[in-house]
Amino acid sequence: MQQVSLAQLNSATKAEFIAALGDIFEHSPWVPEVAAADRPFATLAALYASLKTALLRAGEDRQLAVITAHPDLAGKAARAGTLTPESTAEQTSAGLDRLSEAEYTTFHRFNEAYKARFGFPFIICVRRHTKDSILRALERRAKSNAASERATALTEILRIVALRLDQRVRAPDRLAVHGRLSTHVLDNYSGRPGEGIALELFELSESDERRLITRAVTNDDGRTEAPLIAGRPVPIGAYELRFAIGDYYARTKAELADPPFLDVVPIRFAVAEPEGHYHVPLLCTPWSYTTYRGS
Amino acid sequence: MQQVSLAQLNSATKAEFIAALGDIFEHSPWVPEVAAADRPFATLAALYASLKTALLRAGEDRQLAVITAHPDLAGKAARAGTLTPESTAEQTSAGLDRLSEAEYTTFHRFNEAYKARFGFPFIICVRRHTKDSILRALERRAKSNAASERATALTEILRIVALRLDQRVRAPDRLAVHGRLSTHVLDNYSGRPGEGIALELFELSESDERRLITRAVTNDDGRTEAPLIAGRPVPIGAYELRFAIGDYYARTKAELADPPFLDVVPIRFAVAEPEGHYHVPLLCTPWSYTTYRGS
Amino acid sequence: MQQVSLAQLNSATKAEFIAALGDIFEHSPWVPEVAAADRPFATLAALYASLKTALLRAGEDRQLAVITAHPDLAGKAARAGTLTPESTAEQTSAGLDRLSEAEYTTFHRFNEAYKARFGFPFIICVRRHTKDSILRALERRAKSNAASERATALTEILRIVALRLDQRVRAPDRLAVHGRLSTHVLDNYSGRPGEGIALELFELSESDERRLITRAVTNDDGRTEAPLIAGRPVPIGAYELRFAIGDYYARTKAELADPPFLDVVPIRFAVAEPEGHYHVPLLCTPWSYTTYRGS
Amino acid sequence: MQQVSLAQLNSATKAEFIAALGDIFEHSPWVPEVAAADRPFATLAALYASLKTALLRAGEDRQLAVITAHPDLAGKAARAGTLTPESTAEQTSAGLDRLSEAEYTTFHRFNEAYKARFGFPFIICVRRHTKDSILRALERRAKSNAASERATALTEILRIVALRLDQRVRAPDRLAVHGRLSTHVLDNYSGRPGEGIALELFELSESDERRLITRAVTNDDGRTEAPLIAGRPVPIGAYELRFAIGDYYARTKAELADPPFLDVVPIRFAVAEPEGHYHVPLLCTPWSYTTYRGS
Repeated sequence: MQQVSLAQLNSATKAEFIAALGDIFEHSPWVPEVAAADRPFATLAALYASLKTALLRAGEDRQLAVITAHPDLAGKAARAGTLTPESTAEQTSAGLDRLSEAEYTTFHRFNEAYKARFGFPFIICVRRHTKDSILRALERRAKSNAASERATALTEILRIVALRLDQRVRAPDRLAVHGRLSTHVLDNYSGRPGEGIALELFELSESDERRLITRAVTNDDGRTEAPLIAGRPVPIGAYELRFAIGDYYARTKAELADPPFLDVVPIRFAVAEPEGHYHVPLLCTPWSYTTYRGS
Repeated sequence: MQQVSLAQLNSATKAEFIAALGDIFEHSPWVPEVAAADRPFATLAALYASLKTALLRAGEDRQLAVITAHPDLAGKAARAGTLTPESTAEQTSAGLDRLSEAEYTTFHRFNEAYKARFGFPFIICVRRHTKDSILRALERRAKSNAASERATALTEILRIVALRLDQRVRAPDRLAVHGRLSTHVLDNYSGRPGEGIALELFELSESDERRLITRAVTNDDGRTEAPLIAGRPVPIGAYELRFAIGDYYARTKAELADPPFLDVVPIRFAVAEPEGHYHVPLLCTPWSYTTYRGS
Repeated sequence: MQQVSLAQLNSATKAEFIAALGDIFEHSPWVPEVAAADRPFATLAALYASLKTALLRAGEDRQLAVITAHPDLAGKAARAGTLTPESTAEQTSAGLDRLSEAEYTTFHRFNEAYKARFGFPFIICVRRHTKDSILRALERRAKSNAASERATALTEILRIVALRLDQRVRAPDRLAVHGRLSTHVLDNYSGRPGEGIALELFELSESDERRLITRAVTNDDGRTEAPLIAGRPVPIGAYELRFAIGDYYARTKAELADPPFLDVVPIRFAVAEPEGHYHVPLLCTPWSYTTYRGS
Repeated sequence: MQQVSLAQLNSATKAEFIAALGDIFEHSPWVPEVAAADRPFATLAALYASLKTALLRAGEDRQLAVITAHPDLAGKAARAGTLTPESTAEQTSAGLDRLSEAEYTTFHRFNEAYKARFGFPFIICVRRHTKDSILRALERRAKSNAASERATALTEILRIVALRLDQRVRAPDRLAVHGRLSTHVLDNYSGRPGEGIALELFELSESDERRLITRAVTNDDGRTEAPLIAGRPVPIGAYELRFAIGDYYARTKAELADPPFLDVVPIRFAVAEPEGHYHVPLLCTPWSYTTYRGS
């Protein structure tokens, strides 16, 4: 996927414009074609707004055509490798390419039931989700009604489009599609930032499996050099941060029990707003700790 | 194992006394026989002190005989079912009857190396330990010297004896052989004790396996009806307490995220003093929590 | 005021009964006279219930007579020393005997306005209040209506009666008229209770004056030997607890700044339920602290 | 006092240079005169280093002359208004112009005793101090010896000089002479920053008087728009931060007691390093709070 600047899009011919953005909506180049007439766009937000208007002002039939142009989540096309490159990357982000046979069957069954009920595939912006939160959404939305699901499908398509634009178009502004997850360790024993503390971030599944997302070590301000997650949505789901404070205090002159009362401190929390800023600090001593949703 | 009162022991014939306490030291009825002459005992502590003096004033040969009368930990006798009933119960308490084949081999190898080096079996008061802490002690003590290990073996034998006395003899006083593990949930969101919160206590192995010790629900004072562990030593090792505060707050009118930021809160801590009182409270809101070693 | 046992009251003649309890209601011996017929009372609660019923079932005129039999709060009778002994003690408890001339004038003005509006004096159970909370209640209730104020006056009279019974009658049960204020210091730096920490409890006025209620030093469990307030209502009002943790840490080997970051830690809180249990703990290190309403 | 740029100082004639910086050392233009020869200075740090070297390499007599050129702290010259403008501003910063007659007498007595013992006036960089910390330093240093006090006087003079340079010379770099005091309120009840919370910062004297330093209201990130103290040293001394969280929670839908358990939360702390960064956050609910030295 090649990046293009907003200026280039503004000065492009209509054909070039469609060549650049034709696949922003799945198999639906007519949407950017409509939006092309609104050029020039001062901001990426304006381009996005134009695309959104084009979709929402189109008739129900055209909207439904866009909806049905989407592939099944974790479906046969994914297995067969016939998805668009962007769909492939998106489904991979949520781990849909790593399903067990049982999970694949569950997804398949849910998808078929959904399609049988509503006449179009289940659409969700998978970059904002984990496997578990997709399944929960599928269960919940399968009990909804067609009108509401059509509206939800359009909302999710626009979220997918916003993330594709964010990745593809260089512009002076950014769409509000990124979340952030960060941490900070304060050592209340010494009154200083907790420096050199190893930490790990895991994604947790409902069945308590953990998948390592990243490892880091705190710097002299008690923070990690970069946020644990940034530049993308923080997928809806459960996480565990693990802080190796036992090793940290063993390196200081703190008087510790043997084994130390606290060693690896696990903090479990869930993300509900993928575009939110989640700051999850740890205030600790060898005998106590506090965590909270910070800012 | 039948209980006997201190008064009965005081008024018993010497033969009856030995019949009651002859197996307090492993295969060494001579120790209680010596102590019998100190009767009457005003307290259980006095009886214990008399037994301790009898052992420590005996010659090195008799002490060594007591030491070598002990079976291997997790050894062939345990497998063959030829341990004394008390040894069997003790080894079971630390899970030594549930060893995998690999663990059995490790124990066997360590025991043999220890015996080859020191000429007597590795002795430890297993009721004060978990499988992991026994293995760590074995590794550490295998590097010690014979004089120090003989002294340590006598210390551990006296700990075993104190626990056996505690279980067998009813007396006005208690030996200081019990620890306690308790918890308390304070809901800082409502300013009240956290009532009706389900919690679980697990023992953790170094390989991160968890073994459920107990389940409880907090009462209207935020405490469990009984301590999580009491009336026995709290085995040296790692533990995890899990508090289902997500369910608790879902039952109140608290405004929560979906999924809630905090659901099941895990607290990991280690016990270093089996006779200590470990109070591990949780102060929580839907967005924060604090834990510490309390009192 | 002499104590009497419930058994004595049950076996007393009617005249003796009235002699013992005749002044339980201010200048209204007819109320205990009615209740005397309900004897014997199994519990103090039953005696109280009988007195309450006698008052509430009486006609409006008799109730109003009881109400108007009460003296002004902080009024001329108090100054002149012509109150009943119990009224004197009660008004003293809230500091109404220590009013400045300006405060006396304020009370006088409020009382007169209240009486002019409702035709009876302002009644409040002063043992449950501080000077400030009485004034706030006076301001609020002065805007109420007569029916509501008559009902409130009866409620307050019954509170006064319950406290008088609690002090005067020995019985197997206690009325729920006592609150409690307690504290506990946990040293999260050492993982132990904070022992030997000097603390002071002040009552705060709205004008930020502080009046010392009690001093104490924490024991080896981090608690004070007795609750800071017990055996009586905790007056509605604002309080400040001050913990001298700087001196405490200076006695330990903790590494401190000079001057120490934390020295005397003040905790300000208010009591709203005089019969409630207020536990206000402090979790501290030389660099941090936490407080909360505990249990 | 007029600002001058480092470039101007570099290109100035020697006379101009001395005109600009001649009073950087109290009545001692010879120090900048020596330093003038080291021009050009790439940085303010280099200029400061040159001045420092000029002072420290001078003979003891010249150093002593610089020391004795300083006025008494809070002395007659201050009262008579005959101090240099910079000394006046400095003494004012620590409140030495607002002494009571008793305090003036104490300072006078201490100063005279100090001068009688050492032969030169007591010198301290008052911008780094409060009245109380100056008095404590005076008491402590009065017991020192002459050699050590001469060295301390030079250190303090160089601190004064660094602060004067910082105010007077515009340069690409800054000397490390500024501290910072900041705060942050996290509402653990709602999981959001505490917005719109009024707070006050007081300086506390040892006699518990408070002097208002600044007022602020937290913004939508729970912080104040500017640090509470910045761009100058944070004077060594005791402070109280007061957060009006009662008013804050009264504006939300939180269920509160009446009066609320927590209303104005006072946090007392002391500053020991004037160039340090003091971050003093508050984590709160209507029923609990936590504070700590953050970063």
